[in-house]
Amino acid sequence: MSDAPNPTAALIVIGNEVLSGRTQDANLRYLATRLGEIGMPLREARVIPDVAEVIVATVNELRARFDHVFTTGGIGPTHDDITSECVAAAFGVPWEPHPEAWAKMAASYQPGDFNAARQRMATMPRGASLIETTVTIAPGFSIGNVHVMAGVPRVMQAQFESLAPRLPRGRPIVARAVHAARLPEGRIAEGLTAIQARFPTLDIGSYPYYREGGGGVAIVAKGTDAEVAERAIAEVTALMTALGALPVAGEPPPA
Amino acid sequence: MSDAPNPTAALIVIGNEVLSGRTQDANLRYLATRLGEIGMPLREARVIPDVAEVIVATVNELRARFDHVFTTGGIGPTHDDITSECVAAAFGVPWEPHPEAWAKMAASYQPGDFNAARQRMATMPRGASLIETTVTIAPGFSIGNVHVMAGVPRVMQAQFESLAPRLPRGRPIVARAVHAARLPEGRIAEGLTAIQARFPTLDIGSYPYYREGGGGVAIVAKGTDAEVAERAIAEVTALMTALGALPVAGEPPPA
Repeated sequence: MSDAPNPTAALIVIGNEVLSGRTQDANLRYLATRLGEIGMPLREARVIPDVAEVIVATVNELRARFDHVFTTGGIGPTHDDITSECVAAAFGVPWEPHPEAWAKMAASYQPGDFNAARQRMATMPRGASLIETTVTIAPGFSIGNVHVMAGVPRVMQAQFESLAPRLPRGRPIVARAVHAARLPEGRIAEGLTAIQARFPTLDIGSYPYYREGGGGVAIVAKGTDAEVAERAIAEVTALMTALGALPVAGEPPPA
Repeated sequence: MSDAPNPTAALIVIGNEVLSGRTQDANLRYLATRLGEIGMPLREARVIPDVAEVIVATVNELRARFDHVFTTGGIGPTHDDITSECVAAAFGVPWEPHPEAWAKMAASYQPGDFNAARQRMATMPRGASLIETTVTIAPGFSIGNVHVMAGVPRVMQAQFESLAPRLPRGRPIVARAVHAARLPEGRIAEGLTAIQARFPTLDIGSYPYYREGGGGVAIVAKGTDAEVAERAIAEVTALMTALGALPVAGEPPPA
């Protein structure tokens, strides 16, 4: 495996419905997990409204800063679905019928049903390559380092899995964890700082948890080397024991 | 009620655990809903890592662009809790013991337990005003138009509700909705575009839904005038009927 740094990713969640609280986003967590597994960690996510200038500016800022940018939402047939034309504007290319998408969608509808609204879903930035799935006839697409997917989670997930084999891979991010009940973060913090300092290649996080009848703290070490993460968690386990707690391997069970 | 435009809000979710997929964020949706209710709509949200220069730059960008900025996460006692010192750096003020927070926290611990890690939670940007709750002794704080809250949802919610009476209020955002089963978005899109054009003060969204045995589409009209939203939804209802569907008032029942 190469020693090159992992490629980086950013996510743009496009949709007023997330910013208004109507809809609980479920795409960030799915993509965060899957991108970690393929070694392209998610470094930033933004939730932005269906406003053209915001979409264009955000796409252009993030595609310059990160190796890959994923968008979710705004590629349906209605007036508030403007992601595709905004990505064309961001790249400065025409937004035009995609011959392959157009032909496939036209063939999938009854005569007369491939109307202007549905034709918009086959209209893409020039040079886009399709992200096709069996879940829906309307495809997502990639252009440059930007990957445009649906907002509906089951469609987005199918599109990501269709795209994934074409993405570059880095070293997968692995996590090791230990937790202890009735151990306040404030007691473990000082020792944990020293362990983090000894393992600079790891990202060591401390997460309090709450349960009926009490809670505790979970310590998670993430990195690209499982053995190093295990050594750090062994040190955390010893620290917890020295503080009089009873450490248990892994994350705490779900609430 | 004044005709001044509503104040705007942005949210910064700070934490590697959300970007890695370990943790499902629950704060965005809560704040989005509550901010709509007090007439300070959420215009953008960002999820960023525990990296000092990213936090400082994001705080400074968003506090210049939006009327109020809320942050969640990174104010605990451990090494990865760096939000407070980063906000001080963003404002260019010292990060120093907050006398009131320090006195209260010192008094709440047994002698010797108010250690260096816990003292960090009483260390704040100079000029910060506390956001206190009964849920936890460690307070959040406001400085200028930036409001710094915990990442744990029940603590964040208590802090927001403690802060809310001190926030400016605009006209509450109200929503009216109608849905219809077995109506594809692609059939309603054209008529919906015309309705949106007739109601430029509303944000009309179209959201397909999926259920066992079929789905449909929900149309939601949001704005600050309930009567206008109701008129728009009445037009959508007539459109659905004209398309042969059976519209039902309100959002579809949960899946």
